[in-house]
Amino acid sequence: MAEAPAEIEALIDLMARLPGLGPRSARRAVLTMVRKRAQLMVPLSEALARAAARVRECVACGNVATDALCPICADPRRADGTLCVVEDVADLWAMERGGAFRGRYHVLGGTLSALDEVGPDELGIPKLVARVAEEGVGEVILALGATVDGQTTAHYIADALEGGTVQVTTLARGVPVGGELDYLDDGTISAALKARRAV
Amino acid sequence: MAEAPAEIEALIDLMARLPGLGPRSARRAVLTMVRKRAQLMVPLSEALARAAARVRECVACGNVATDALCPICADPRRADGTLCVVEDVADLWAMERGGAFRGRYHVLGGTLSALDEVGPDELGIPKLVARVAEEGVGEVILALGATVDGQTTAHYIADALEGGTVQVTTLARGVPVGGELDYLDDGTISAALKARRAV
Repeated sequence: MAEAPAEIEALIDLMARLPGLGPRSARRAVLTMVRKRAQLMVPLSEALARAAARVRECVACGNVATDALCPICADPRRADGTLCVVEDVADLWAMERGGAFRGRYHVLGGTLSALDEVGPDELGIPKLVARVAEEGVGEVILALGATVDGQTTAHYIADALEGGTVQVTTLARGVPVGGELDYLDDGTISAALKARRAV
Repeated sequence: MAEAPAEIEALIDLMARLPGLGPRSARRAVLTMVRKRAQLMVPLSEALARAAARVRECVACGNVATDALCPICADPRRADGTLCVVEDVADLWAMERGGAFRGRYHVLGGTLSALDEVGPDELGIPKLVARVAEEGVGEVILALGATVDGQTTAHYIADALEGGTVQVTTLARGVPVGGELDYLDDGTISAALKARRAV
């Protein structure tokens, strides 16, 4: 027999497709919403409708935006000749939380992956190369993950930009702030040792 | 500075209030919805609006329903004189998945808790006692969690029903199907030993 009304089953199925939620936690989330209809279910439904209607992709960088350009691309003070390449919008937000970067971004939307059939065209790398030339970018910072796919993508982009006048850099590898040597993996320790500097 | 448009921040704040999601996983879920607007964000917004408009509490048992009575309370074949008391709707669904119970339910909506100031009135226990008398229930099955709060609540309800003609039972404690002794806690093993039976 059906355990729950069709409206609830449909909601659970959709919630279970979100990352981090399985069928069981989706069920629990939906029951919480049913219990907190006025404080949670109704506001969430309205917030989703509003976001679906207003939020889109920045035409320049791929960040989430409510206008054609995101606030970063619309801000002339951020045209400092540097362009930071990130995998996705969550990484862009992480860089912004750091607060140290004052240039603009380019969101790839993923990494090259032979397994998932993601090639340079799917990631818009030709568009990135064109953008670097058009905007007279002086430095491209590759802020990609220290994973195999991330590093493959970084190498591919560095190759694609070679021959131009642009300088290509990547984030430093090393001991994270607050990190204890004993808990770090060997790869990080040897990278930090290779990149050691005078105090 | 604001990392994301206000529409997105509002959505993340609401999603982070669901059980099982923190600020970081809420952000990830919202970014997934932004990427899958047509397949996920729009249907979810519509499903939530539909559920918020149609789903309510069964007036008899507290189950989720789209009519005044849930399908179980509306089904005359389920009036078999037994009433199963559960903590919440998720537990009712778990009992229904088991498929062994053919009577009706009473959803408490929680357990007695001195810390959270949940007393018998908040749980509607007087209403449960009245319902048992009115409907001529022969057996009340207390299917409450094997936690301190669950067992306190079970004892309280058993006391409240004492003196009537109704029989009060609880679920058996023992080794779960597929359970290996080596992985069971001591409490379960001693409960199973105490309740041992002839083969």
